[in-house]
Amino acid sequence: MGRLKDLLIANCLDGFIHFQTNKANDNVTLHYLSGVRRLQDAGVIIPLDSDPVLIVKQFEQERVNSATRIEDVRAVVTTPLDNGLRRIKEVIEEKGLIGKRVGVDDIELTLEVFNKFRSLDVELVPFGSSIRLMRMVKTRQELENIRKAVELATLGLKTIESIARDGLTEMEFAAEASATMERHGGEKSFVSVQYAENAAIPHKGSSARKVGSNGLLLVDLGARVNGYTSDLTRTFVLGSPPNQQTRLVKLVEEAINQSFMSVVSGQSVEGAAKKARSILGKNGLPQPKHSIGHGIGLSVHEMPTIEEGEPYVFGEGMVVTIEPAVYLPGITGCRIETDVAITGQGAEMLDTKLFPLSTF
Amino acid sequence: MGRLKDLLIANCLDGFIHFQTNKANDNVTLHYLSGVRRLQDAGVIIPLDSDPVLIVKQFEQERVNSATRIEDVRAVVTTPLDNGLRRIKEVIEEKGLIGKRVGVDDIELTLEVFNKFRSLDVELVPFGSSIRLMRMVKTRQELENIRKAVELATLGLKTIESIARDGLTEMEFAAEASATMERHGGEKSFVSVQYAENAAIPHKGSSARKVGSNGLLLVDLGARVNGYTSDLTRTFVLGSPPNQQTRLVKLVEEAINQSFMSVVSGQSVEGAAKKARSILGKNGLPQPKHSIGHGIGLSVHEMPTIEEGEPYVFGEGMVVTIEPAVYLPGITGCRIETDVAITGQGAEMLDTKLFPLSTF
Repeated sequence: MGRLKDLLIANCLDGFIHFQTNKANDNVTLHYLSGVRRLQDAGVIIPLDSDPVLIVKQFEQERVNSATRIEDVRAVVTTPLDNGLRRIKEVIEEKGLIGKRVGVDDIELTLEVFNKFRSLDVELVPFGSSIRLMRMVKTRQELENIRKAVELATLGLKTIESIARDGLTEMEFAAEASATMERHGGEKSFVSVQYAENAAIPHKGSSARKVGSNGLLLVDLGARVNGYTSDLTRTFVLGSPPNQQTRLVKLVEEAINQSFMSVVSGQSVEGAAKKARSILGKNGLPQPKHSIGHGIGLSVHEMPTIEEGEPYVFGEGMVVTIEPAVYLPGITGCRIETDVAITGQGAEMLDTKLFPLSTF
Repeated sequence: MGRLKDLLIANCLDGFIHFQTNKANDNVTLHYLSGVRRLQDAGVIIPLDSDPVLIVKQFEQERVNSATRIEDVRAVVTTPLDNGLRRIKEVIEEKGLIGKRVGVDDIELTLEVFNKFRSLDVELVPFGSSIRLMRMVKTRQELENIRKAVELATLGLKTIESIARDGLTEMEFAAEASATMERHGGEKSFVSVQYAENAAIPHKGSSARKVGSNGLLLVDLGARVNGYTSDLTRTFVLGSPPNQQTRLVKLVEEAINQSFMSVVSGQSVEGAAKKARSILGKNGLPQPKHSIGHGIGLSVHEMPTIEEGEPYVFGEGMVVTIEPAVYLPGITGCRIETDVAITGQGAEMLDTKLFPLSTF
């Protein structure tokens, strides 16, 4: 809670409150602040000057107690939003927050809950950006989770590599990769397998199409460990596609390697994007319309976005992807994505010792 | 869009607007209204009197065009929230919505986006409950998706049943069930495998614990098809646990069957909850602290909640779970859950022809 409290002080806030209903799915602020996954109909009050309080549904209390770092966990029986709010009100009085400035996570807080919060006798101040800035820099424990999630994802890649010529469908490949990650104690974050011209459409997902023996096979996947995700992409060359296609894999790998050189604490984030794009541009290739990379953590896309115009610099503790790509509509697509941890000294590709960026 | 427009008229609204950032994960209103999964940094404007407009990131346009029923799809290049908002502003002018009453989905809309919407020259009116009421009644196509998702989940159950005595860990069982669902073209929604005293903790998830040969094995799982989820639970009796434990399975099954009798169009939702609880109560068993069931659809928990005090009545097109349970802390737990579609004539358990409620 130390870093959060520093940010509260920097924003002249006396505390923070949040509540997540069961109707808005799977947001992560409560997980981040409590250590407990998938809390719904639950809230947290973090006063600057005293101990935090977690409010959960009664039937979740045992699960929550064994997972959270917060000692003061209080249960709500029924009609969770209204009773949760009543509990929050009580805690606000108990902790002397009445009339004070209290932060809310405007990036996740829903309008429904905000409208309820308005009846609390506090001044509500948007604080979501500060939480995202805090999440951008990982603790050692968070990095450890991501590192394990990367290991699991490389096992998924190995599975697909080992059966890539077996004539399965894109979906069947995806199922085998998921099963590998889960058998090893992880959880699938996502798996997308796209062959030949399907690879030209970002975010397309896996289809029922049979994977052939002569073309590019794009595999984008991530595992989760304690909620923390990895996000890796490889493009396998199957058979002997035209040189124009295999060349893509080499150039995209070069774009990653060049970009990686400028992923150093203190260097600008947009510099890393420019490096990758300049390799593609110099070789006459179309630029991807998505960003060159992004932070990862509890969400698959976190700050910073690695793109031109972004104001951030790399700093120790950040974990980002670099994922340059070339899409040739109707023909094929190639994307390679590595997960990079920025350290004090430089940066480390978390995946490449376990699985190379390209395989020929 | 016909039902939505009826609800707009009933609420004296001239249109509806929504925007989903990429920071608030995986909400479903945009999916529901556009037919496209996992839209982020995207928005929709639905005027009462003219055609809807979908606003998406440029690199998603091809994927979106092939999936949505909305014909007018417009792309935004960078800084999605600000440019998306500019696009929304243009469309609001174009469609004559300036100064008009426009609905917002307060249950999903984040405060960050709402604060941006405030600069639009329209009157913003909470409309989230109406969308939830609309989602509560499924179309034929939605029911078809859920039906397929139920089939896939029963395949997952069959997988676990066939290896239940192989001495795997809870997580390994979960991985095999996931793989089965995915190999058959579905997607895992969730899988939780809990053995013996682990089964006493709802929502605990699967652990690295080895499943023994003498106790209750609780399996709660769902698959997704086109985003629609199933949600089934079975409690397998492994070996010969004490009669006190096997008796739970019979009584919970009886609670389901009794409850199911009152899941009929026009009957109160709370009646079905009372029926289940009365069977447990009459037999001296502790009541579960969670609800007796809930609607399913794009979310695992939708309206109606099947619980005492809920004001709704069952109606044709609803799809709900019934999931009475008994938890004996430190000893074991038993939950059985069926997915029920309410038809004009009565109701249908979607799963039991494929996998019985209990197996002895």
